[in-house]
Amino acid sequence: MPQFIHKGRKRAGSSPGTLIHIGEAKMDSVSITAIVYTAENAEAHPRLRAEDLRPPDDPHRRVWIDVVGIHDTSTVEAIGTRFDIHPLTLEDILDTGHRPKTEEFDDYLYFVFKMLRFDEMTHSVVSEQVSLILGNGFVITFQEVHGDVFTPVRERLAKAKGLIRKRSSDYLAYALIDAAVDQYFNIMEKMGERIEVLEEELTDHPEADVLRRIHHLKREAIYLRKRIWPMRDMLSRLTKGEFDLIQEENRIYFADVYDHIAQLIDTNESYRDVLTGMLDLYMTTVSNRMNQVMKVLTIVATIFIPITFIAGVYGMNFKHMPELEWPWGYGAVWGVMVGIAMVMIIIFKRNRWL
Amino acid sequence: MPQFIHKGRKRAGSSPGTLIHIGEAKMDSVSITAIVYTAENAEAHPRLRAEDLRPPDDPHRRVWIDVVGIHDTSTVEAIGTRFDIHPLTLEDILDTGHRPKTEEFDDYLYFVFKMLRFDEMTHSVVSEQVSLILGNGFVITFQEVHGDVFTPVRERLAKAKGLIRKRSSDYLAYALIDAAVDQYFNIMEKMGERIEVLEEELTDHPEADVLRRIHHLKREAIYLRKRIWPMRDMLSRLTKGEFDLIQEENRIYFADVYDHIAQLIDTNESYRDVLTGMLDLYMTTVSNRMNQVMKVLTIVATIFIPITFIAGVYGMNFKHMPELEWPWGYGAVWGVMVGIAMVMIIIFKRNRWL
Amino acid sequence: MPQFIHKGRKRAGSSPGTLIHIGEAKMDSVSITAIVYTAENAEAHPRLRAEDLRPPDDPHRRVWIDVVGIHDTSTVEAIGTRFDIHPLTLEDILDTGHRPKTEEFDDYLYFVFKMLRFDEMTHSVVSEQVSLILGNGFVITFQEVHGDVFTPVRERLAKAKGLIRKRSSDYLAYALIDAAVDQYFNIMEKMGERIEVLEEELTDHPEADVLRRIHHLKREAIYLRKRIWPMRDMLSRLTKGEFDLIQEENRIYFADVYDHIAQLIDTNESYRDVLTGMLDLYMTTVSNRMNQVMKVLTIVATIFIPITFIAGVYGMNFKHMPELEWPWGYGAVWGVMVGIAMVMIIIFKRNRWL
Amino acid sequence: MPQFIHKGRKRAGSSPGTLIHIGEAKMDSVSITAIVYTAENAEAHPRLRAEDLRPPDDPHRRVWIDVVGIHDTSTVEAIGTRFDIHPLTLEDILDTGHRPKTEEFDDYLYFVFKMLRFDEMTHSVVSEQVSLILGNGFVITFQEVHGDVFTPVRERLAKAKGLIRKRSSDYLAYALIDAAVDQYFNIMEKMGERIEVLEEELTDHPEADVLRRIHHLKREAIYLRKRIWPMRDMLSRLTKGEFDLIQEENRIYFADVYDHIAQLIDTNESYRDVLTGMLDLYMTTVSNRMNQVMKVLTIVATIFIPITFIAGVYGMNFKHMPELEWPWGYGAVWGVMVGIAMVMIIIFKRNRWL
Amino acid sequence: MPQFIHKGRKRAGSSPGTLIHIGEAKMDSVSITAIVYTAENAEAHPRLRAEDLRPPDDPHRRVWIDVVGIHDTSTVEAIGTRFDIHPLTLEDILDTGHRPKTEEFDDYLYFVFKMLRFDEMTHSVVSEQVSLILGNGFVITFQEVHGDVFTPVRERLAKAKGLIRKRSSDYLAYALIDAAVDQYFNIMEKMGERIEVLEEELTDHPEADVLRRIHHLKREAIYLRKRIWPMRDMLSRLTKGEFDLIQEENRIYFADVYDHIAQLIDTNESYRDVLTGMLDLYMTTVSNRMNQVMKVLTIVATIFIPITFIAGVYGMNFKHMPELEWPWGYGAVWGVMVGIAMVMIIIFKRNRWL
Repeated sequence: MPQFIHKGRKRAGSSPGTLIHIGEAKMDSVSITAIVYTAENAEAHPRLRAEDLRPPDDPHRRVWIDVVGIHDTSTVEAIGTRFDIHPLTLEDILDTGHRPKTEEFDDYLYFVFKMLRFDEMTHSVVSEQVSLILGNGFVITFQEVHGDVFTPVRERLAKAKGLIRKRSSDYLAYALIDAAVDQYFNIMEKMGERIEVLEEELTDHPEADVLRRIHHLKREAIYLRKRIWPMRDMLSRLTKGEFDLIQEENRIYFADVYDHIAQLIDTNESYRDVLTGMLDLYMTTVSNRMNQVMKVLTIVATIFIPITFIAGVYGMNFKHMPELEWPWGYGAVWGVMVGIAMVMIIIFKRNRWL
Repeated sequence: MPQFIHKGRKRAGSSPGTLIHIGEAKMDSVSITAIVYTAENAEAHPRLRAEDLRPPDDPHRRVWIDVVGIHDTSTVEAIGTRFDIHPLTLEDILDTGHRPKTEEFDDYLYFVFKMLRFDEMTHSVVSEQVSLILGNGFVITFQEVHGDVFTPVRERLAKAKGLIRKRSSDYLAYALIDAAVDQYFNIMEKMGERIEVLEEELTDHPEADVLRRIHHLKREAIYLRKRIWPMRDMLSRLTKGEFDLIQEENRIYFADVYDHIAQLIDTNESYRDVLTGMLDLYMTTVSNRMNQVMKVLTIVATIFIPITFIAGVYGMNFKHMPELEWPWGYGAVWGVMVGIAMVMIIIFKRNRWL
Repeated sequence: MPQFIHKGRKRAGSSPGTLIHIGEAKMDSVSITAIVYTAENAEAHPRLRAEDLRPPDDPHRRVWIDVVGIHDTSTVEAIGTRFDIHPLTLEDILDTGHRPKTEEFDDYLYFVFKMLRFDEMTHSVVSEQVSLILGNGFVITFQEVHGDVFTPVRERLAKAKGLIRKRSSDYLAYALIDAAVDQYFNIMEKMGERIEVLEEELTDHPEADVLRRIHHLKREAIYLRKRIWPMRDMLSRLTKGEFDLIQEENRIYFADVYDHIAQLIDTNESYRDVLTGMLDLYMTTVSNRMNQVMKVLTIVATIFIPITFIAGVYGMNFKHMPELEWPWGYGAVWGVMVGIAMVMIIIFKRNRWL
Repeated sequence: MPQFIHKGRKRAGSSPGTLIHIGEAKMDSVSITAIVYTAENAEAHPRLRAEDLRPPDDPHRRVWIDVVGIHDTSTVEAIGTRFDIHPLTLEDILDTGHRPKTEEFDDYLYFVFKMLRFDEMTHSVVSEQVSLILGNGFVITFQEVHGDVFTPVRERLAKAKGLIRKRSSDYLAYALIDAAVDQYFNIMEKMGERIEVLEEELTDHPEADVLRRIHHLKREAIYLRKRIWPMRDMLSRLTKGEFDLIQEENRIYFADVYDHIAQLIDTNESYRDVLTGMLDLYMTTVSNRMNQVMKVLTIVATIFIPITFIAGVYGMNFKHMPELEWPWGYGAVWGVMVGIAMVMIIIFKRNRWL
Repeated sequence: MPQFIHKGRKRAGSSPGTLIHIGEAKMDSVSITAIVYTAENAEAHPRLRAEDLRPPDDPHRRVWIDVVGIHDTSTVEAIGTRFDIHPLTLEDILDTGHRPKTEEFDDYLYFVFKMLRFDEMTHSVVSEQVSLILGNGFVITFQEVHGDVFTPVRERLAKAKGLIRKRSSDYLAYALIDAAVDQYFNIMEKMGERIEVLEEELTDHPEADVLRRIHHLKREAIYLRKRIWPMRDMLSRLTKGEFDLIQEENRIYFADVYDHIAQLIDTNESYRDVLTGMLDLYMTTVSNRMNQVMKVLTIVATIFIPITFIAGVYGMNFKHMPELEWPWGYGAVWGVMVGIAMVMIIIFKRNRWL
């Protein structure tokens, strides 16, 4: 079962900016990688310590600092101090149960969003939180675990594909968000396939298990909506020129991601409607079958119960039962019994039960 | 099953503007036709290559370039270069799973919308994507396959029917969008007919198949909503004088298409409500029938079970059963049995089960 | 079944302003009546031809032209030419499947709305379309058939009741729209009565027919919503001083009609909720009854099946059945059978099945 | 059944301002009371005629005219003339089926709202309409019947409690509306109690009657929503400084009533949700019981039907049935029958049916 | 059952500002504690009387007055007089059934919100009302009972943790509201756990009790929505710079609480959807089981009823029954009976009932 709220959120009443990691520690150690790039070249500095970092001072150099593993509050705090990040932001970075949002601070923008991954083991979608800080000339990302979602972006930086090295750091922020959203399409496609498979099974042999799987998929659709829906607000603010850090020439890219999110939300809603329809279909199919079963029982019972009664009557041991003496009695009784059965069958035919 | 999302959308993380065709290649080759027209005449240039195209330079000449087949990315790219189209637009043209939208660029407007077609083979609605670029003096349309939806527009251009040759190129864009929307009415009408047929069958002989067809129609209504609903936004922006490329005198035409879309959305919602009502009706009919079946079983069983028991009692072989010796015993037992049956029938009558 | 979309809408792709009548031709010939009135007097000119009409030139004279029958496109076109009406408006007048709306043109306002009528034959609501053109000093109405909805307005004009002759032509437009909306109240009241009757029947003897009638009424509520809901937008624009043709002193009257529409929408929504509640009630009643029937069957069967078995046992013909020889065997068996029945009844009583 | 629309609304097409009383005449005669008050004292003038009334001319004197009984159109008309009230307002006062609203006229504000009363006889909520005209220095209320809702306001005027005599007449209007809204809380509380009682019964002994009462309460919640919801709009306009007649210092009081209405709407929605939940609970409980009943039948029948068959077999009268001759045959048959019964019971146990 | 409205709200028609305590008196006596703090130190003054209080006059000293127990109207009134609080506010403080809201007065802001607590006794959520008055340099809170929700804030004041002593009194207001909202997360988490437990039970052994617990949880979700939803509005106004009393530097903290509320609302909606899904799952599981039970009954009955009839036939005592004389008659009958049973079983296999 996907969890809708994080357990162990026990900071009730603590001072804002108190740095407590909320969520599971999914990594052993923290890994920090910085990619420093200009329009001309890009170089990666892996395995850094928080102390090695500092904001870029050359306006032509831009840095992407990728922090993987956020359970170590001291590292996050150290980075926060070096880049002059508000304590509330640091607190939010550490709290992995956050709702996607955009927040503006004096000299940076803070984004929280989710990475989605289909876990083949549990056959369900899991999400991890990404925090992204977009400052003047730098981007810092905080991930919970190593993943390969940002790999293509890393390659584009290395190989100078597209505009990524030529544009300012907000373009990099866009590229990272876009990579995460592209991942959502894979998740959604996977979900579409599972619905399709289920729908075919529903038609061919509706077992009780189908029901449980419809329920499972519905839950996942609810889960996805909770993750994706707030991104609409988050992105719509970026397309409106509200923030100075988003260059006008790059706004169209954020608008493009916004469109993707709108499409994902539409698709998710359609899936929910389809799943509800499937549930109705399943339930009615079950009712129909029951009806079928009942009919068979009723037909057999209503034909045989009266004639069994007649047989019972002539099985009685009364001394004086004149019919028993009649030579053609036995034949007559058979006649009556067959007659009753025929009448019953005719009635059933008329009522279209047969 | 109509697909709600396109499979094989595997561009996750690639650079924006990377041109990859997403969707099935529905055509063998690409066909490009240009219609060059002034207020006085119009001439069609079929079977062009991308290299033959260029934006019109004479303010009195207007061009409609109709590209059919979009799986060949190089053609789309070549046209993009010649008409100075943003890479994001080219990417959107190639991605056939797009949500209808209007997007403004520096010197053109970009529309995506769907063409709907009722496939008689699969008895379901299929959609194809149309991209329309409205520039100053030119319109470029990108279709997935040849279709006859735009044929009337072509004829109006050839025969100078109406205002089409007199007005600027945004009127042509309107005419093309309007032709697609008119097609939706046919689809919706077809759907209305199928609902009507189904409703009659539901009344006359509600078979299990009816259920599956209601489900099928519901899915299609969901599918249509996903296709049509976003056009509301797309068109509403055109009616408000937001874009310079839409002449004030032509805005009323876009408002007209907007009204049609509003009407289609209303109708679709009504269909969904009606289909939900039909499902309820079907389910309750099934319950009612079951009730009927149960009643028959209950009546027959409750009348005959007690009297069969009595017959069974006098079929026992005890040595000392005084009743068996009585000369009127047999008659009396018949009397008791008929009496019990009568009482049962009276009780049933009172409870209105008969 | 009320139709949600008009059949035969086959204009796909035709030029806007192409005049095609869409809908049934409900009349043999077209009837045109003009009422010319000033504050002092009013005179009616029946049976005019389109050629006789022209816009009023005296600012103190106002005209109401009432055209009944719109299947004759040439008449509509002739009027259009004389009053300088936009081709799109003419096209809309001829298309009887239109959504209620207000549209502003250079020198007139165009309204489309529906007249509702309860057809006693089919026991359902039918709608006809009315187009109203409000110009400077004139009002033109286009109706599909003769009806008596506008009769009171005609009388008020003739007898100078109220303000109708003193105010400008927008007051006449108001009076006509108001007359149609007043008609809706009758329809709604009729519907309320039918729901009430149905609800009583549901309580007294819920037959299968009730179900079908609930479904019928639900459909009608959906149908009415589709007709009435868009009038909200249509009228709200009239109350805001957006249009010069609506005099400030008359705006309050349009606000009054707007209130009526809001009330009708509320009532319709309440009806839908009530009908949904009735359906639930019906379905649960059916379930309850089934339960009742099942209980009777179960009680009778579970009491008699075991004791019938016992009777069967002592009906066996084994040579060596010692019980059969016992003189008190028969009595003992009766005792056992009665005992079992008693125990069963006590169990049922405890479980509150009796 | 609460009526959602008033019957006999037969004014279709009549001139606006035509004074017709719509609704039942709930009173024999009309009663008019005027309370004239200044900051220092207040005096009541009961049993006035319409002719005695006139607007106050002294700016320090304020008047509240309370008209009970509105079926007499001539009285309403006479008051209208004296206070210069618009004919549309007079018409609205007489039409008791109005939707709550605020309407601004040149020198007065017109409010319509409902008084709710729980009728112990029919166990349902009934509503009466109140019209309130707030002019400069005077308030006129039109009620359908005598009620005690305004009594506390009357007392506060008499005893100079609170600010009521010190503030301008809009404060009096507030006090009257507030008194009506306070009444709603009693209604809502009563409803909450009935839901609670019903919920307990549902748990303890869910009878068929419970269903009907849930339905009844749902209807009432629909009815209340229709009455209360529009007051939100009505009051929100009063808190925004839109009207000159509402003093700035008194606006906070209207905001307070607005909050109460918001709370009532919330509560009503919660009730509807709870009632829907109760209906689901009831229906599932019924299903569950049926299941229980079916299980008992199935267990008894499937155990006894096979062994009854065996008894039947050895009750046959064939000449040559070797088993019948065996001395231990009878015992063996008993053994087989008990064995079959045991196997059945074990199977049931395994399937958790016992 | 959580109550949706407070009983005994009998102030109908009383003058606004009349101080009546509405709700249960949950405390014996009133306890007033004042914490006076500057940036440097903080001292607590417990067990004060209302007469000891006065607004701070030194701009560097700030006071938090915590009043626990609001049933004593005289205390509330005395405080109201000393701090110049509007009578409407005092009335609202005493009415414990209020909807969360923010209200601006001349020199203070008034907040009402709820504290939520999970009562382990009744296994349900209970709420208590908190009123918070934020003035210039002081905060007054009114609670119904002693609780430990504000304890961490008290400690932060004592130990100068974070910014709490350095910032103005609106920051204290934020800290208190935030502490209450943090509590909501615990409640929501508790609810999530209960849903999870229930879902597992639903899968493993769906008892009738599960149904009642789903219903209980649904009610609680409705209850929570009613408590939490209005806080969205309450807080959104605080983040917009609408009020002078909220310092610009502190607005971001209120925005943070707003985000938390948005997340809680999302989670609550997800829970409601999940619970609805569980109910559907439960109902369908019940139907499925019934189907299973019916099948067993039908199979057993339809196999044995016909062959029992045959046995009955040859148990008849007619003199002339030739079959009885045949030496191989008994064997043939067994053959026929076994044959019928086999045919039945084959039919069932084909229909996939076995």
